[in-house]
Amino acid sequence: MRALVIGAGGFVGGYLINHLQEMGDEVIATTIASVPVSAPVQSLTLDITDAAAVGSVLQSVKPDVVYHLAGIAFVPEAEGNFEKTLGVNVAGTANIARHSQILPHKPVVLFVSSAEVYGQVRPHELPVSEKSELRPANNYSLSKRMAELVVERYGRQGLTYSIARPFNHIGPGQDSRFVASNFAQQLARVARGLTPPLLEVGNLEARRDFSDVRDIVRAYRLIATGEPGTYNLGSGRSHSIQEILDTLIEISGCKVEIRQDPLRMRGPEVPELYGSIEKVSKVCGWRPEIPLRRSLEDTYRHWFASLSESDNALG
Amino acid sequence: MRALVIGAGGFVGGYLINHLQEMGDEVIATTIASVPVSAPVQSLTLDITDAAAVGSVLQSVKPDVVYHLAGIAFVPEAEGNFEKTLGVNVAGTANIARHSQILPHKPVVLFVSSAEVYGQVRPHELPVSEKSELRPANNYSLSKRMAELVVERYGRQGLTYSIARPFNHIGPGQDSRFVASNFAQQLARVARGLTPPLLEVGNLEARRDFSDVRDIVRAYRLIATGEPGTYNLGSGRSHSIQEILDTLIEISGCKVEIRQDPLRMRGPEVPELYGSIEKVSKVCGWRPEIPLRRSLEDTYRHWFASLSESDNALG
Repeated sequence: MRALVIGAGGFVGGYLINHLQEMGDEVIATTIASVPVSAPVQSLTLDITDAAAVGSVLQSVKPDVVYHLAGIAFVPEAEGNFEKTLGVNVAGTANIARHSQILPHKPVVLFVSSAEVYGQVRPHELPVSEKSELRPANNYSLSKRMAELVVERYGRQGLTYSIARPFNHIGPGQDSRFVASNFAQQLARVARGLTPPLLEVGNLEARRDFSDVRDIVRAYRLIATGEPGTYNLGSGRSHSIQEILDTLIEISGCKVEIRQDPLRMRGPEVPELYGSIEKVSKVCGWRPEIPLRRSLEDTYRHWFASLSESDNALG
Repeated sequence: MRALVIGAGGFVGGYLINHLQEMGDEVIATTIASVPVSAPVQSLTLDITDAAAVGSVLQSVKPDVVYHLAGIAFVPEAEGNFEKTLGVNVAGTANIARHSQILPHKPVVLFVSSAEVYGQVRPHELPVSEKSELRPANNYSLSKRMAELVVERYGRQGLTYSIARPFNHIGPGQDSRFVASNFAQQLARVARGLTPPLLEVGNLEARRDFSDVRDIVRAYRLIATGEPGTYNLGSGRSHSIQEILDTLIEISGCKVEIRQDPLRMRGPEVPELYGSIEKVSKVCGWRPEIPLRRSLEDTYRHWFASLSESDNALG
């Protein structure tokens, strides 16, 4: 199987490439010019907002499967620049879907959306299924739903596609703007003696559905090579941010003071969100395997090790 | 009532302004720099993609109601440039909705969407109601659905809004890229002896829901000042393009040869589309009053008269 991973420079890209190669796929990766791929793979530079470039990459690579991971993935970044977010997340997806649909040898497209498309979920609607109402409530989730509409449109014109709606996924190497990685980084810095034992946190009450990125990329391949459809990907349960914090503190062995930073309390929050993964379990035989504690341990250790390395580099 | 009409330079803008003024509203209109308003009204220049400019117009005008008509309205134009369409129709709408929501004196926003959002409707789904499934199938209808998602998002944050989904509406002054106006223009040119008696047409079998623009703008005010919601606006029945053509030929009194132009046969068409207008009738007391034949007569006479004027201007 010939796989094209678009947007391979992000957190998930490296894990997906490793998994696809382990499964025997031939992998070609693309990243935007400024981001290198963190896995050994044949890679190309591609800006998905450049329609002609998307067309020529698809034509020359001739993939069986396109994994489309590219896009602005951080909620506040999307909120700050909607026009850019539309250009990358929506028009960029249109370029990939349209060119995939008109290729003589049509690839299957897996579009990586987000469970954020469910938006303002009410408690009685939990767990959300793929048929739950969508109420996207910020520019990021809007752009993901809009990109789904684009993919569905080309689907009606002959494109074979699936849509993944992952809930929060974590693991070593995630950007420290995301909550679990952020806590782990702060704790590793405390443990290394680089900062005083003080942890800055935002809203700790929100409950979210956390999985390990290594389970998630396994699902991407199962979905892309299986029955086309739209699939939730998560753990099927929720944990509070407080639990994430407590577990990481325990893992680190640090004694820290907690300070709630009003600037890090995100606006109108959904108190609890978790999804039903019945569909993907039934249709694709996928279930998450890595327990939350191990994901947090690995994330913490990654930060701890990388801080050590940078100390050496400076020393 | 103080009304701000954004996008007043299009076909519908002049009719809406006239109607609002007749009803005693104080009207301020905005157009993009390149388009003049066709009605006597206080007008401003506004590019809705300029967020800061949208904010300052809303702050200085302090409207009770914002009528948002601005956007790319021609399907092939949207198809040719998705990024621009996203910028104007989606990000532009976000600028209007966001600034309206954060104003101390919040106006009601009427967003003029389109029945095109229903997209690929199946025969057993007719007439489509506001609860029918949405399957937008081109960049124009996608952008309209996306803009609805944006308005709904700000609605969840406190904006009072309504969404109008008009089906095809026609009348004197419509751009000749739209089918009824196009036929009327061609026939008026034949009647004036400016072209040979030959009519170029596209697909004549499609059945659509046609109303008069003067009925539609009356509905806009009823909706904007009534119960907030999403409303279909149409005639509640369908007519074939062939019927439009035959009626216009009869009105013109011309004998013409019909030539089907393959370039004007739009791609995968929905054979028939018409909407239920039960909701707007019940909630807002609106019903269309102008019969189709009168709309076509007025459209034809408008072209016939304007061609005479341009002849004089040249003579």
